[in-house]
Amino acid sequence: MTRLTAEAKGVYVIAVTPFHADGRIDYDSTDRMVDFYLEVGATGLTVLGMMGEAPKLTIEESQAVVQRILARVQGRVPVVVGVSAPGFAQMQTLTRMVMDDGAAGVMIAPPGSLRTDDQIVGYYAQAADFIGDVPWVLQDFPLVTGVQMSVPVIARIIAANPTCVCLKHEDWPGLEKIGALRKAGTLDRRISILCGNGGVFLPEEMARGADGAMTGFAYPEMMVGVVENHAKGDMDRARDLFDAYLPLARFEQQPGLGLAVRKYALARRGVIADPALRRPGAALSAASRAEVDLLIARQERRLKELG
Amino acid sequence: MTRLTAEAKGVYVIAVTPFHADGRIDYDSTDRMVDFYLEVGATGLTVLGMMGEAPKLTIEESQAVVQRILARVQGRVPVVVGVSAPGFAQMQTLTRMVMDDGAAGVMIAPPGSLRTDDQIVGYYAQAADFIGDVPWVLQDFPLVTGVQMSVPVIARIIAANPTCVCLKHEDWPGLEKIGALRKAGTLDRRISILCGNGGVFLPEEMARGADGAMTGFAYPEMMVGVVENHAKGDMDRARDLFDAYLPLARFEQQPGLGLAVRKYALARRGVIADPALRRPGAALSAASRAEVDLLIARQERRLKELG
Amino acid sequence: MTRLTAEAKGVYVIAVTPFHADGRIDYDSTDRMVDFYLEVGATGLTVLGMMGEAPKLTIEESQAVVQRILARVQGRVPVVVGVSAPGFAQMQTLTRMVMDDGAAGVMIAPPGSLRTDDQIVGYYAQAADFIGDVPWVLQDFPLVTGVQMSVPVIARIIAANPTCVCLKHEDWPGLEKIGALRKAGTLDRRISILCGNGGVFLPEEMARGADGAMTGFAYPEMMVGVVENHAKGDMDRARDLFDAYLPLARFEQQPGLGLAVRKYALARRGVIADPALRRPGAALSAASRAEVDLLIARQERRLKELG
Amino acid sequence: MTRLTAEAKGVYVIAVTPFHADGRIDYDSTDRMVDFYLEVGATGLTVLGMMGEAPKLTIEESQAVVQRILARVQGRVPVVVGVSAPGFAQMQTLTRMVMDDGAAGVMIAPPGSLRTDDQIVGYYAQAADFIGDVPWVLQDFPLVTGVQMSVPVIARIIAANPTCVCLKHEDWPGLEKIGALRKAGTLDRRISILCGNGGVFLPEEMARGADGAMTGFAYPEMMVGVVENHAKGDMDRARDLFDAYLPLARFEQQPGLGLAVRKYALARRGVIADPALRRPGAALSAASRAEVDLLIARQERRLKELG
Repeated sequence: MTRLTAEAKGVYVIAVTPFHADGRIDYDSTDRMVDFYLEVGATGLTVLGMMGEAPKLTIEESQAVVQRILARVQGRVPVVVGVSAPGFAQMQTLTRMVMDDGAAGVMIAPPGSLRTDDQIVGYYAQAADFIGDVPWVLQDFPLVTGVQMSVPVIARIIAANPTCVCLKHEDWPGLEKIGALRKAGTLDRRISILCGNGGVFLPEEMARGADGAMTGFAYPEMMVGVVENHAKGDMDRARDLFDAYLPLARFEQQPGLGLAVRKYALARRGVIADPALRRPGAALSAASRAEVDLLIARQERRLKELG
Repeated sequence: MTRLTAEAKGVYVIAVTPFHADGRIDYDSTDRMVDFYLEVGATGLTVLGMMGEAPKLTIEESQAVVQRILARVQGRVPVVVGVSAPGFAQMQTLTRMVMDDGAAGVMIAPPGSLRTDDQIVGYYAQAADFIGDVPWVLQDFPLVTGVQMSVPVIARIIAANPTCVCLKHEDWPGLEKIGALRKAGTLDRRISILCGNGGVFLPEEMARGADGAMTGFAYPEMMVGVVENHAKGDMDRARDLFDAYLPLARFEQQPGLGLAVRKYALARRGVIADPALRRPGAALSAASRAEVDLLIARQERRLKELG
Repeated sequence: MTRLTAEAKGVYVIAVTPFHADGRIDYDSTDRMVDFYLEVGATGLTVLGMMGEAPKLTIEESQAVVQRILARVQGRVPVVVGVSAPGFAQMQTLTRMVMDDGAAGVMIAPPGSLRTDDQIVGYYAQAADFIGDVPWVLQDFPLVTGVQMSVPVIARIIAANPTCVCLKHEDWPGLEKIGALRKAGTLDRRISILCGNGGVFLPEEMARGADGAMTGFAYPEMMVGVVENHAKGDMDRARDLFDAYLPLARFEQQPGLGLAVRKYALARRGVIADPALRRPGAALSAASRAEVDLLIARQERRLKELG
Repeated sequence: MTRLTAEAKGVYVIAVTPFHADGRIDYDSTDRMVDFYLEVGATGLTVLGMMGEAPKLTIEESQAVVQRILARVQGRVPVVVGVSAPGFAQMQTLTRMVMDDGAAGVMIAPPGSLRTDDQIVGYYAQAADFIGDVPWVLQDFPLVTGVQMSVPVIARIIAANPTCVCLKHEDWPGLEKIGALRKAGTLDRRISILCGNGGVFLPEEMARGADGAMTGFAYPEMMVGVVENHAKGDMDRARDLFDAYLPLARFEQQPGLGLAVRKYALARRGVIADPALRRPGAALSAASRAEVDLLIARQERRLKELG
């Protein structure tokens, strides 16, 4: 069984959870989605993240979704599972389940009540203790969690917890943070840095030292293209691609609404059968759908120009 | 099976969840605690509330604790169960479980992300829809949830949801709110108002029109005494009792620390075997324990003076 | 003297406050900046906004900056002044000063302590009462203020306060809000809607019914181009321009850092002498400056392609 | 001119700002208030604090109030002035004014935007730099400011800023914090710790090592009595006094409403002519006034019993 390591790189797509219009989980679409993500070049998957509507699932559903995805992936790429929970008992239970099922690691976001540096460091020490010998991703997403992790705090967490192998970098602004983390001497060991925020800063993030993306933009081709062209040293091509997708990526990055945009685009592409979010979840208005259609049309035109 | 109604009154004690020092649930103490609460005059119990360390339990543990308590209560008083959850699917699952087991109703706190009046009203409409024909308590606790519910919002929630039968009033300050809710014409029907905040405003709350307390101060005798003397019209005696307990009640009301104080006092009284909180949870320092000891000694002296 | 009305449209540029490197106000650059904004097509100016470093100025400095700008504008376009303050006394004092000096109106953001609908409506009733017969702009910027104003709340504010003539729309996401406000029957009269957020949603905002922009992107040409082409009905051209500027606009939209990016770009364009922010204020790192340089180079190339 | 030092102790009363019913400052009441505070045993005064309605004053009014109070005090006790402001320029201006007028030092609360340890430490380094050689009080009041300062952060601030001589301790819960700050080795020098929170934890705070109170309960006799009896070693008497005042002190401690309670009690005592708060400010309902009347009557009865 593959385990997540500090060498993780490329594009870990944050998977959506497909639902039928009536709110039931759509497992056929889940299979198709896995195939799609791997075909476009995903080097990993992350499931039950915030954009996977994880809090809307019961524990049984969460496990069922993870098992279905793992069965379809068949070990071809590592699968990371979000296990953030209000208490450590639930986090521990879910972690054991998904690791037994074959997950490569877990991801943990901080609870919104944490404020001081010591509180944050203390929380992760306890979490790591509870989940035991399981590699995990530190999720740094202040816009949503309300928790600000400074560079020294991240350094303390990494120094104290050998099982922490990756940072899901989603601070905004966050470019200087990547720079600081990559500076010699900041961390006591190199970890993987994969970036979120729908990919809307990916070219700059790669240039600052990120290892790739962990986010779920409906056109993962953009992230794959940026990462691959960066690896080849062709940043101009990377930026051309990025710019072509940016108008839609920006539109998908709207808080609250973003997931509905993403699912609409995935349904439009035939990846999932229905764009439905489970309740409570914003439905996309006709005006928004028309805007997405227009943005996709312009995006295709621009990609054609670029060749 | 008793169901919670809008006529609920008296003292619904918020039960703690007793743990062994190693973090396992202490079921023997749970039994003893139920006996104790009923002996001192509780007219109801509320379990899995915020002060019941609910988020630290797995779903299986939550159900086991509720079942144990219901088995011990044997229908003598109604038992309300906190079912607040990040998603409606979990809320629904837990509600069905505990109602099948014999609970009298459930309690729902709002998620911290709600801001506008419409968002709050909309959330409760969805929650009520998910839990179906189950009586529920609206928990109004802005200090902890961050959600401010105005009087018009509470009126809209009550008008829209016939299954909402009780308000757990824990706004601070909140006396004017009780007054406004009890004013003719504010609500379209009378509901029960039971007050929290460790009971530190109980005399004034009763005078403003509350029906009792729903809180967990380690000396429920205080709440019982205030409510009973209020019913008899002897507010001077009610206040004398209240004042005697206030120095300790104030001490127990410290956020974060309060539950450790409460459990220490309950263990000292022989109600639970161990004052332990499950991790993560504040331990009481030697200095704090000495302060509680002193406050209890002074409290006993003062109660003796009062006769 | 021109007064702001509900017919305001076009591009109201949010002016920066130019400083010397040592923190003194740079009045020569202020003059040059006014000339620049008017040359590129601004139909109004907004000064002492959040991006104008208003809280870092003393009351004397605030007045001096406004007077200098008004003297340079010489009535050619209306000038709106941000007067948000912790108390109404200060708000009133500043409003009187700047209106006496020739401002066209003021802008008021809500204090972060407001939560319920009634609190927000009540706050603006008091503010409007204090400033008297002065036209004002309602600033709706939840990402920074933490205050969520629903459509019904905005409708109540507009109904209650005839002096409120314009909404500075900066909710995110906010497109549906514009749609709802423009729907017949939502408001009891039409007011101007000018959009913020650095212009990164301007094409969609115009399509939804906005009257223009009130924001400070370092290339106001973008906003002017989008608004003018929208007016001509050439949305394809508007979007081509928008897309060309979007990579930089996105970069400038980083919270906290954005103003430093904006001032760096304005200094690079020769508009202001020094990119310095008054303390406390983020300085732009060498890496960030290089990124801006690259984005501007690519932007110019793309604009040339577009012709 | 007396300057505040790290030896400050006793009771620094947080002064209210008396207003006439129409909102004008009531200077005669200000004089009477100063006399009253000194007569009941205040060892210092703090003006323009949060409970002094400072943000509702214009800069001119702020200076006038401080000058009036300083003129009446005539150097008999040190006067500390709150100078918290959105920007350093305003803070610097107000500090210079009041120090020139004869204040003993200033008090600075953190802006609510600060989150990480480094942000807090950095903010105070800048503030101290701006105000220059002026002794200052570090205000730690997370319930209102939203800023959590850990013990290591306070230690860093004190180590870095020799002009920081006093901590206004108003964390809640905060007893362990006092203990930690007083432990040998935590701070590199001893500073004064004066406690807030309306005095409702004063006996425990003194026992943990505080030097006194800096708060504004309408019966400063309570704080004076607790501090003096603690100094004499008679904590039982200190606690008897405390318990007698606690029901009212608790009532005055209600957020938002507390200042109206305080002013009502001060007006009832004849200290100030009118209980009015300047707008925006909560008025006390008839029900609340009756509750305060009752609490005062019971308080007087209990004090008589105690002798």
